[in-house]
Amino acid sequence: MDCFNVTILGCGSATPTLRHQPTAQVVNFRDKLFMVDCGEGTQLELRRHKQKFQRIGHIFLSHLHGDHCFGLIGFLSTLGLVQRNGEVVIHAHPDAEQVFGSQLKYFCRDLPFTIRFAPFSPEVSEIIYEDRTLRVRTLPLRHRIPTAGFLFEELPRQPHLNIARATALNIPISDYVAIKAGADWKDPSGLLYPNETLVAPAAAPRKYAYCSDTVYLPALIPLLEGVDLLYHEATYLHELEALAHERWHSTAREAAMIARDAHVRQLCIGHYSARYQITDELLAEAQSVFPNTVAATEGLRLEL
Amino acid sequence: MDCFNVTILGCGSATPTLRHQPTAQVVNFRDKLFMVDCGEGTQLELRRHKQKFQRIGHIFLSHLHGDHCFGLIGFLSTLGLVQRNGEVVIHAHPDAEQVFGSQLKYFCRDLPFTIRFAPFSPEVSEIIYEDRTLRVRTLPLRHRIPTAGFLFEELPRQPHLNIARATALNIPISDYVAIKAGADWKDPSGLLYPNETLVAPAAAPRKYAYCSDTVYLPALIPLLEGVDLLYHEATYLHELEALAHERWHSTAREAAMIARDAHVRQLCIGHYSARYQITDELLAEAQSVFPNTVAATEGLRLEL
Repeated sequence: MDCFNVTILGCGSATPTLRHQPTAQVVNFRDKLFMVDCGEGTQLELRRHKQKFQRIGHIFLSHLHGDHCFGLIGFLSTLGLVQRNGEVVIHAHPDAEQVFGSQLKYFCRDLPFTIRFAPFSPEVSEIIYEDRTLRVRTLPLRHRIPTAGFLFEELPRQPHLNIARATALNIPISDYVAIKAGADWKDPSGLLYPNETLVAPAAAPRKYAYCSDTVYLPALIPLLEGVDLLYHEATYLHELEALAHERWHSTAREAAMIARDAHVRQLCIGHYSARYQITDELLAEAQSVFPNTVAATEGLRLEL
Repeated sequence: MDCFNVTILGCGSATPTLRHQPTAQVVNFRDKLFMVDCGEGTQLELRRHKQKFQRIGHIFLSHLHGDHCFGLIGFLSTLGLVQRNGEVVIHAHPDAEQVFGSQLKYFCRDLPFTIRFAPFSPEVSEIIYEDRTLRVRTLPLRHRIPTAGFLFEELPRQPHLNIARATALNIPISDYVAIKAGADWKDPSGLLYPNETLVAPAAAPRKYAYCSDTVYLPALIPLLEGVDLLYHEATYLHELEALAHERWHSTAREAAMIARDAHVRQLCIGHYSARYQITDELLAEAQSVFPNTVAATEGLRLEL
């Protein structure tokens, strides 16, 4: 199966600690790399976890809080030092261009690649990236400032041609493309072979959803229905529910409720408050609601 | 003796590596902390090396290249999270206020402390900080963009009163201040005791000089004469002298020549090019010219 995985580069929250980096991760889909958020120090984590960061062509910023974007300027600057070329697209809130623009102009003159800001409106779910095999759409979240999650959806793949049968029937190779695209096949005598007798269905398209930062938001559930992997922030234990809500964050139990109610396959929690020395309790709390949960840690790679 | 030391937080150069952080250091003078440069990730290094970073009231930026200042916004933002109050002064090139201003306005609204930019002109040596015990002056360097080093000078201290003698002579305590300030003393019978018979001279004022980034610049030598500690960049081995000059950097040998010719007590080299896996050769090259040289490494603390 084509590669589709997520590497966690940082899963801490706003107050820095030596245990966790600020938020960043890399989605690898068929060896195209996509960066999701870019906290301070992300470029070092890319090196530490051996990511081929020159392949990153699209950066998705969930929101403009420092722990999700202070590493952007350093990362772009280093891409220049290593002579990346082509284009890098930054998908972010419309303010991003103005906020980072003056820094880029000052520090990153003469970059060997171009930077394009692709603003999105975090209030509605919209498709912000699409190629032949992958689509990314935003997930409106609720946080102190406008914030969006991201849903990475593999596009439906063509069914697999039953090669043994095609050979036995002497189907010309020139007809394969049409059959994989759904056509029936007629042999020289005029006998019709329905498409479903010639192909096996492709595996279901895989989906990854990233939701950080947000309060507990049941409105997300239909958008997350059946995703293979959900990364959901779990800043606090549920005993701090009131604090979580005051600060526009979720608890581990709430993250798990979203995962359970959206029937996702696996949940990964992260964005831990600096108050937690270890994540055991956060993980246990989430697992008590949704057993197939893992706790993010720097360098963790999750396969879809 | 009152504490006066330097802690290296980062001694790498522009291209990030897992071996060294970008440039930053903390000067501790009598438990007042001064930050010198602030590369990306500096705030984590402050924690890693247990610096009481809330005590940092002045930040000195040598120049506005990213590897010397991309950590500034994250550090200031975190100072806000930990509820620092009062004022933080940023001593930097005049462009700094404009370059960081829009970022600060956007990301650091409602900080509990005030930020004041104190611009200096890197072309001339001038006093940019002074209190009752310490003075900081700029050292004009030559680099691709306007750059200044910094000279931290302890102010001359008062001589030590010879307490045993003062007690034997029955000198009233109320006269101590005047004697330490240089006055002679007359006993009740009118007999004069010259000042130098009552005090021992204070230790010579200590000086720390920071020179990064710069080409080999003999014009610095008179400004560095006799400093206790010189931090001087040594980006390359001397075999790459041409490259060093092209990129406005120094070699290890050149750093040592400056140290030798300025009769400094100790040299610390740093700002290593990413090409060097270890610093042994850079250190050996510098020591061959100036034996009392150490190689900077993250966490190294040098006492003056």
